[in-house]
Amino acid sequence: MTTYHLALLGFGNVGRALAQLLLDKAAEVRERYGLDYKITGLAARRLGWLADPNGLDVAAALAGRAAGGRPWEQSDIRAWLQAARADVLFENTSMNPQTGQPAIDYLKAGLEHGAHIITANKGPVVHAFQELSALARAKGQGFRHEAAVMGGTPIFSLFREALPGVQLQRFRGILNSTTNLILSEMEAGLSFEAAVKKAQDLGIAETDPSADVDGWDAAVKVSALATVLMGVPVKPQAVNPTGIRALTGEQVRAARAAGQPYKLICRAERAADGGVTASVRPEQVPAGDPLANVNGPDSIVTFEMDTLYSLTVSEQRPDAVTTAYGPFADFLGLARRA
Amino acid sequence: MTTYHLALLGFGNVGRALAQLLLDKAAEVRERYGLDYKITGLAARRLGWLADPNGLDVAAALAGRAAGGRPWEQSDIRAWLQAARADVLFENTSMNPQTGQPAIDYLKAGLEHGAHIITANKGPVVHAFQELSALARAKGQGFRHEAAVMGGTPIFSLFREALPGVQLQRFRGILNSTTNLILSEMEAGLSFEAAVKKAQDLGIAETDPSADVDGWDAAVKVSALATVLMGVPVKPQAVNPTGIRALTGEQVRAARAAGQPYKLICRAERAADGGVTASVRPEQVPAGDPLANVNGPDSIVTFEMDTLYSLTVSEQRPDAVTTAYGPFADFLGLARRA
Repeated sequence: MTTYHLALLGFGNVGRALAQLLLDKAAEVRERYGLDYKITGLAARRLGWLADPNGLDVAAALAGRAAGGRPWEQSDIRAWLQAARADVLFENTSMNPQTGQPAIDYLKAGLEHGAHIITANKGPVVHAFQELSALARAKGQGFRHEAAVMGGTPIFSLFREALPGVQLQRFRGILNSTTNLILSEMEAGLSFEAAVKKAQDLGIAETDPSADVDGWDAAVKVSALATVLMGVPVKPQAVNPTGIRALTGEQVRAARAAGQPYKLICRAERAADGGVTASVRPEQVPAGDPLANVNGPDSIVTFEMDTLYSLTVSEQRPDAVTTAYGPFADFLGLARRA
Repeated sequence: MTTYHLALLGFGNVGRALAQLLLDKAAEVRERYGLDYKITGLAARRLGWLADPNGLDVAAALAGRAAGGRPWEQSDIRAWLQAARADVLFENTSMNPQTGQPAIDYLKAGLEHGAHIITANKGPVVHAFQELSALARAKGQGFRHEAAVMGGTPIFSLFREALPGVQLQRFRGILNSTTNLILSEMEAGLSFEAAVKKAQDLGIAETDPSADVDGWDAAVKVSALATVLMGVPVKPQAVNPTGIRALTGEQVRAARAAGQPYKLICRAERAADGGVTASVRPEQVPAGDPLANVNGPDSIVTFEMDTLYSLTVSEQRPDAVTTAYGPFADFLGLARRA
């Protein structure tokens, strides 16, 4: 039986949920797939860079206790990967969505070390998809990023594995949970400001909510989907999003009452010149449209292809576990191929 | 470059659409996947059993002209597969949903010959999934059946390829196009009888519509999904479906007016004893439910898993091409693995 050495970089909500999922599913994965793994690297701001090729005590780390292992200097990710004898690098750090750094450099180091790389971040997909894909091919390693859009819901793997031979013509969706929740709260009677406050209290909106409410998070997701699924690099700046800040509670409630609710709609479409045009902006959606009934933090996307007229995928009530399932499934997908 | 010899059994709506799709996509598949194929076997009631290892003129057959090739006796599917030097058998015949025959025997002959087998029929999945899977493993061949439920929309491949390591707890969906269309027409003002007549005129309902309206087609689909995705064999008789025959136009319209439309809902759920309980019956669905807005011939299914709370997949406006995409994708999936 093959035993994979896993190195986890980032121990926030997603990193912790992933660690827990890996612990919970170890026996089942061994039985179903004949695959074994241990977490030999764990790194985060508060923990430092821990490595032990015999395995770290991740349950202890999750409980706030010492995980064992030798700590390494931050400047030395290569030494850390080597000390962990990492076969797979899971990258779940916080990064700059404008540049994708430092996640991109971490992922490159993972490939240079000879590991598969798996990220839950959309920054590296938007800013370095071609570069990381080419380097992964050259190194004979995998590069996966399922959780970058719609958490653990399979979108990238759906197209890569289950939709061979299609040409994706266009897609349309709701990809930002925070603004969708804010719009639902505004429909229920709150002002924009009060709805933002409520989303912040629920831990869904950030202290500075501008990346969500101004449409930049959605624009990065549209860019990631177009870049990977349509094979045409699209940058968020080119999407030039319009957010929901200009909408008042009255407008949002009147639109819902008229049966045409406001949603922050993401679109991308293959253009005649071979490029892709994309947009993010509030649109009123007809009541019978599948997108009209996606409320709260749920997401949805409808794909139109040459061979399959219209396919819609949606996720309901996502949480940290559903996001952690993305990198977990990415790992199993790569390990089953080996 | 590998050249696959394809044998097509059945030349009705799906078989013809598949033949056309294979012709249309040949150059693209060669370029994208380095795969080549030719149709060397073609068999149907009106055509006889044609085979030519150098390739048949399928475009001619689609235009109602002679496709070339040597005709074989019906009793001799093995000789036909051999004459075609078939690497892949596509089985798209009409079969008996109660027994899955003669499709099951054809598929067995395909495996015995040493070909991958791909069917658009749900009968073999419900009545011989374990048997055909075991034989395929023993022969080192693939067994695929994507189009058996929801046409070309990836459901079986979604779970097999893109959702590793999940435990499917339950699903709920609308899986029979004909009854969904009939209910939509009844909502629009028709009686049950007039709605059936309209569905027949549109070529969607059969001359004898009982398999659809009494829920048996849906029961077979629920059984196929539960058998494959939950790993528990379920037979349509055990589902014991209730169809839509007892609903009047008045009831259907009153339910829609009250915001709780009737839908023929398919359900399956893992039971405490490890088995699966399944049902097909008309249910009133709350207006905000994703299933409430699936109208006409569209389909939808919502899956609940341990690692992914709720994932919904739906298809809009299916036609013969979307069904033909199922076996086409099955073939590419198998050929890309080789």
